[in-house]
Amino acid sequence: MSKLTIGLFGFGCVGQGFYEILNNENNPLFEIKKIVVKNEEKERSAPKELFSTNAEDIFNDAEINLIVELIDDAETAFQIVRRSLARAIPVISANKKMIATHLEELFELQERFNTPLLYEGAVCGSIPILQTLENYYQNDKVNEIRGIFNGSSNYVLSKILNENLSYEAALTQAQELGFAETDPTLDVGGYDPSYKLAILIKHVFGVSIDPNKITRLGIDQLSSTIYDYAQARNLKVKLIASAKVSHGQISASVIPHLVSKEDEEFTIENEFNSVAIATEYTGKQLLVGKGAGKYPTGLAVYNDLKNLLKGFKYKNKESLVALNDEPITVFIKYEQSGFIIKFFDQIKEHNLTKGESYIIGEIAPSKLRTLKGFNDLSVAVFTENAIKKAQLSTSYSYAV
Amino acid sequence: MSKLTIGLFGFGCVGQGFYEILNNENNPLFEIKKIVVKNEEKERSAPKELFSTNAEDIFNDAEINLIVELIDDAETAFQIVRRSLARAIPVISANKKMIATHLEELFELQERFNTPLLYEGAVCGSIPILQTLENYYQNDKVNEIRGIFNGSSNYVLSKILNENLSYEAALTQAQELGFAETDPTLDVGGYDPSYKLAILIKHVFGVSIDPNKITRLGIDQLSSTIYDYAQARNLKVKLIASAKVSHGQISASVIPHLVSKEDEEFTIENEFNSVAIATEYTGKQLLVGKGAGKYPTGLAVYNDLKNLLKGFKYKNKESLVALNDEPITVFIKYEQSGFIIKFFDQIKEHNLTKGESYIIGEIAPSKLRTLKGFNDLSVAVFTENAIKKAQLSTSYSYAV
Repeated sequence: MSKLTIGLFGFGCVGQGFYEILNNENNPLFEIKKIVVKNEEKERSAPKELFSTNAEDIFNDAEINLIVELIDDAETAFQIVRRSLARAIPVISANKKMIATHLEELFELQERFNTPLLYEGAVCGSIPILQTLENYYQNDKVNEIRGIFNGSSNYVLSKILNENLSYEAALTQAQELGFAETDPTLDVGGYDPSYKLAILIKHVFGVSIDPNKITRLGIDQLSSTIYDYAQARNLKVKLIASAKVSHGQISASVIPHLVSKEDEEFTIENEFNSVAIATEYTGKQLLVGKGAGKYPTGLAVYNDLKNLLKGFKYKNKESLVALNDEPITVFIKYEQSGFIIKFFDQIKEHNLTKGESYIIGEIAPSKLRTLKGFNDLSVAVFTENAIKKAQLSTSYSYAV
Repeated sequence: MSKLTIGLFGFGCVGQGFYEILNNENNPLFEIKKIVVKNEEKERSAPKELFSTNAEDIFNDAEINLIVELIDDAETAFQIVRRSLARAIPVISANKKMIATHLEELFELQERFNTPLLYEGAVCGSIPILQTLENYYQNDKVNEIRGIFNGSSNYVLSKILNENLSYEAALTQAQELGFAETDPTLDVGGYDPSYKLAILIKHVFGVSIDPNKITRLGIDQLSSTIYDYAQARNLKVKLIASAKVSHGQISASVIPHLVSKEDEEFTIENEFNSVAIATEYTGKQLLVGKGAGKYPTGLAVYNDLKNLLKGFKYKNKESLVALNDEPITVFIKYEQSGFIIKFFDQIKEHNLTKGESYIIGEIAPSKLRTLKGFNDLSVAVFTENAIKKAQLSTSYSYAV
């Protein structure tokens, strides 16, 4: 492939960023021939003749030899990708939900039709994490990957903890700045980071995991009792996605964590994302950058073009690890549901002050998933460092 | 090139790490055929028949199609690299001093003989910074690059500031743990990070700079007055290498900095390194990892093998920026040299307490280089965040 003639689906925030970078760089090897959008009426920042609302204008054009898919709707996106790969046309996408929920099929299609699909822009925007994993850690054993994978939630938590904004005010601000979706559930409910985590788990550990199987709690269920607890102990609250393998079992979760200054995530503020990797040969590595946005994600898509020209494709790693259910130390604030005590393996602290009642203790992730049905709870996990910092009073510790 | 038959020069810490990783990975495409060392007598952790003390055993072997150079001595290393490239044999090296002091010649040799030289292991050990810059930021404008490029100095500073160890005790500990050289001047004098910075400046800005032209102050000139000042204001002291371009001029320095918790370097402790990049499209990016050591650097060398097979080579960027001499805000502790006041453009604070006298003010980097002749001074620069945090009393501010 010597020149890429591109059919682009979608012209939202990332699509426009990608288009502008392509124009600025002015590389004779890349040309956008057609842009298919839903709404023909909208004012566009590109020549009118490029646009169409008919997908066939891309699929019927024999010159188009690359499809860049940057639309919102995951199911339509999957149809586009499947159809392209089946015609041996490579695809670049940034649709995390589509990729996370079809990982196995997508690898299968790539192999069957010997045609690559790249999606650096789908995971943590400007952080070149997939490329780094494939190029650099392919010969190193990764034991753990974790980080802040959702810029909107992190922005909200920064504003609440550092500037004492209310949850609602912080979220409105994030939406006004374009960090959060109009329907923010994907962000604050922890869905978006669970998609990114599922993609990374496949690339790091070779395991395809249904994103719905990941223990997932968002920042929408947190309460001021948790913030007060954290602030009194110089801890912060961060929404952390993590996956870890030990003894052939994988633990994967997206949960708000109480973090201490020794944790890498402590200083990651506002719309920034982080990815920490623990490997056999190199120890701990950390990558930090903007997790979303027009140009950060647009550049990731643009770099996929260049990688495609070089013949780069993702390896289909396979491995045999099972889901793990080892207990984790959590802080659970409750209103009426005092009976949750029976779900714990061990209690470390129990505060009974009316309106601020909480339990700190060890609980199995599967039981935590059961508890999600009770909507008067708010939950955060302690990092190892936060456990030390909070000096959890082991004297009160008792088995349940 | 389908299989790499390797001639290895040097079998020290990194050489052994590289050898072990190669053996563990057991890739049929890579084979070490000969290892040339200085001392034949030493006990080795590899089969005796691999070793020789005669460089010609590598150069006369027609099967050897790659030279990996991992020796200490920069001048001998340069002879080896020049000879290899002239015979169109690609080279991988991790010798920062050799590379930094011969950058132009090395690019010229690579072009003349159309033969690549790779050296990811020379810059910040396990952090894949050169690969990331070449693959990911090639189409993005980098405005600044800075970080902690010397693990030994950072280890010493961590121990002094966090555990109140003396400079001597901390340095001895670093040496015992293998983080520092037996002659630690290269580390604590700031030479080692100045070589890495010169290499990065070439790769980022296209400018070949003589490492001796970089304003360079190490941690060996710091005094407890600076540590006390920092601790009283919740600041830390970090040895920071930085290069920044503005208005077509480049500022480059390796100097201890007073950093505040808003600075990326604040939480980088012990033997870890960091590289922060500010770019046009992505904003701020940060990479953190172990900066040195057997396996971290060994893996970087091993990854260069794989990149070589893929046809990867560094681009010879060229640009036209000049050295900049804009004033920086420094803390200078002095014993007798009160007359240094005339070197400042502006004074912000002047403490005359006997034995703890210091001046805080703005000084041009060229004047700071002049001051290095006075050995009763100790110097650290303020970051922008540290200036705010320290609330420099602008009321005392006066022009000199």
